[in-house]
Amino acid sequence: MTSPQGFRAAGVSAGLKSTGAKDLALVVNDGPAYDSASVFTSNRCKANPILWSQEVVKDGTVRAIVLNSGGANCYTGAEGFQTTHAVAEQVAARVGIGAGDVVVCSTGLIGLANPRQNLLDGVDAAHAALDGSGGAAAAEAIMTTDSVSKQVVVEGAGWSIGGMAKGAGMLAPQLATMLVVLTTDALVPHEDLDAALRAATRVSFDRLDSDGCMSTNDTVTVMASGASGITPSLDDFTAALTQACTDLAMQLLKDAEGADHEIAITVLNAASEDDAVTVGRSVARSNLFKAAVFGKDPNWGRVLASIGTTDAVFDPADLDVAMNGVWVCRQSTPHDDPATVDLEPREVSVTIDLKSGTERATVWTNDLTHAYVHENSAYSS
Amino acid sequence: MTSPQGFRAAGVSAGLKSTGAKDLALVVNDGPAYDSASVFTSNRCKANPILWSQEVVKDGTVRAIVLNSGGANCYTGAEGFQTTHAVAEQVAARVGIGAGDVVVCSTGLIGLANPRQNLLDGVDAAHAALDGSGGAAAAEAIMTTDSVSKQVVVEGAGWSIGGMAKGAGMLAPQLATMLVVLTTDALVPHEDLDAALRAATRVSFDRLDSDGCMSTNDTVTVMASGASGITPSLDDFTAALTQACTDLAMQLLKDAEGADHEIAITVLNAASEDDAVTVGRSVARSNLFKAAVFGKDPNWGRVLASIGTTDAVFDPADLDVAMNGVWVCRQSTPHDDPATVDLEPREVSVTIDLKSGTERATVWTNDLTHAYVHENSAYSS
Repeated sequence: MTSPQGFRAAGVSAGLKSTGAKDLALVVNDGPAYDSASVFTSNRCKANPILWSQEVVKDGTVRAIVLNSGGANCYTGAEGFQTTHAVAEQVAARVGIGAGDVVVCSTGLIGLANPRQNLLDGVDAAHAALDGSGGAAAAEAIMTTDSVSKQVVVEGAGWSIGGMAKGAGMLAPQLATMLVVLTTDALVPHEDLDAALRAATRVSFDRLDSDGCMSTNDTVTVMASGASGITPSLDDFTAALTQACTDLAMQLLKDAEGADHEIAITVLNAASEDDAVTVGRSVARSNLFKAAVFGKDPNWGRVLASIGTTDAVFDPADLDVAMNGVWVCRQSTPHDDPATVDLEPREVSVTIDLKSGTERATVWTNDLTHAYVHENSAYSS
Repeated sequence: MTSPQGFRAAGVSAGLKSTGAKDLALVVNDGPAYDSASVFTSNRCKANPILWSQEVVKDGTVRAIVLNSGGANCYTGAEGFQTTHAVAEQVAARVGIGAGDVVVCSTGLIGLANPRQNLLDGVDAAHAALDGSGGAAAAEAIMTTDSVSKQVVVEGAGWSIGGMAKGAGMLAPQLATMLVVLTTDALVPHEDLDAALRAATRVSFDRLDSDGCMSTNDTVTVMASGASGITPSLDDFTAALTQACTDLAMQLLKDAEGADHEIAITVLNAASEDDAVTVGRSVARSNLFKAAVFGKDPNWGRVLASIGTTDAVFDPADLDVAMNGVWVCRQSTPHDDPATVDLEPREVSVTIDLKSGTERATVWTNDLTHAYVHENSAYSS
């Protein structure tokens, strides 16, 4: 994230995590430009940092992002909002900018007040530790149940994109939230940043559906420092940003809590891209299908049953389904022997041919495992 | 189911289950009336017996229902449909009625051909065993992963309603399907039966959402023999039928695969009944919330996060949530101590006050457990 020019970052321990691990990250854009764009969770129950940050990003300028793990600051009332505000003010005072240019992100349990003084002291420590190579420490400080930190660098022609992420999907396990910060030293006006970010997230984070549960705190923000002095074409920049987002999305998929398999559900020959996504998501949300993959059982009947719950265009009597390339179902009847499908490897592909058009999409999910139930039944206790 | 006058039933072993347990049931209406009504799964991927039975019920007359466990006969192609047809013809020939008055129901794995000769021989055996007290044997023969058979009797004034069910919800675990047969000796024309059945299922089976997965084979059929000679008021009959359906729904809820808890989610003060059901269902489909209940963790943050995914009318800053009567959240902020919520008992209540109207609804679900994952990851192997 500090690979592009013009950014400093830090990750410190503010004492929010009982383990003493790093739990507060600060990322500062040193310019000369301060363009930004953001997308937030579409959950109507939004955390205090979302309520704050939605206002901050409206003018297209963000100069710093402060993130904490160890508490989502969601449904903590007016006092929780004041904590978010105070943290932004502290960052602004230390960096010498306005609080209205500081995005705040939090992740952890809902309904738990974050200790304000810890956060303010943490901001001071992070500010003191800001460094042009602090990206890795920042990525570490936003981890909750993540087993590894997630970073990405994509190189352009004389410019680059960096990024970090935490969580296990847009639809996040444990409501521990997906937080993503992207940086670039390309010179990109905020309107173009916004268009590129929406295009990139639409085909990456938006198609990750690990457990069907949408967080209250999801935030993706990109900041452009312009420090390279180069303005790439919008197409080139969008392609690079899409690559960065997809790379981070795959890292989230592979680290999803308790998962044994990464499942790519590709829907072919749909009447519309929306139909393809709808069908893919319906399969991604079938607990029965996901439990079957955990059990290494190529149960294509559960795929058909999920497709049947959608309003996509298709003929229920003419569906083809493949698992790992074996067409176990043709024209909605049994075809190749499911026993030849090897579900030992972590990566699983499901291909669904709707035979109703020319559009396609891939939705990614994980299997439903004992470990998922275990981790999510013991979270707040 | 044979408690009302005018019905005979039987349950026999046709050799579909490898255990040799009963797997074929036959229920015959001996009249003098043969009115009926049915509701079927809304899944667009429908099993062969559904495709057959939808035609059978169109004229409002059903004289016999034949049901098998041990195979859903779903996505088994033209041969599968011919099997369903042959079974109906066999029943018709033995009973001396037309095949067009025979409803067929099947339950078990999708994509598995049912052995036709076993079914035909089973029909012969069941016909020979038909008895005015055969309801219990029939209820036993339709069990799959059910741990107990499910029956109900509701007494009217000189008439009664009987019923049997199998499965673990409208949205059925393992696609093992919910099958329900209801009988009455009241004299009820099929238009009234239809209205009563739709009213009864709307507030019972339709509000059971054990695991979010909709079956391809769900069928609920009521048959009225008129043998009591009594025509109750439509209100009285609908109330009794609703009582019978609710009783069976609660039996299904309590026997849901692998579940440790029965969870009733009641939504109060909604702008519409649809809003109340939508909000209740969103919570019922949250794997995170259901895993928390399994872990005896009163994690109300996961309730709010689910509510926030709906388009129901409410103010995100003014939601109240109680678990087992403890108001853990008021005005979207922490209130009573969640530690005082005792989640040891199987029965859990969640109450959500939307403060946006006067309508209400209850949706029932189960928790997400290790046993659920285990049973559904090992089903077809």
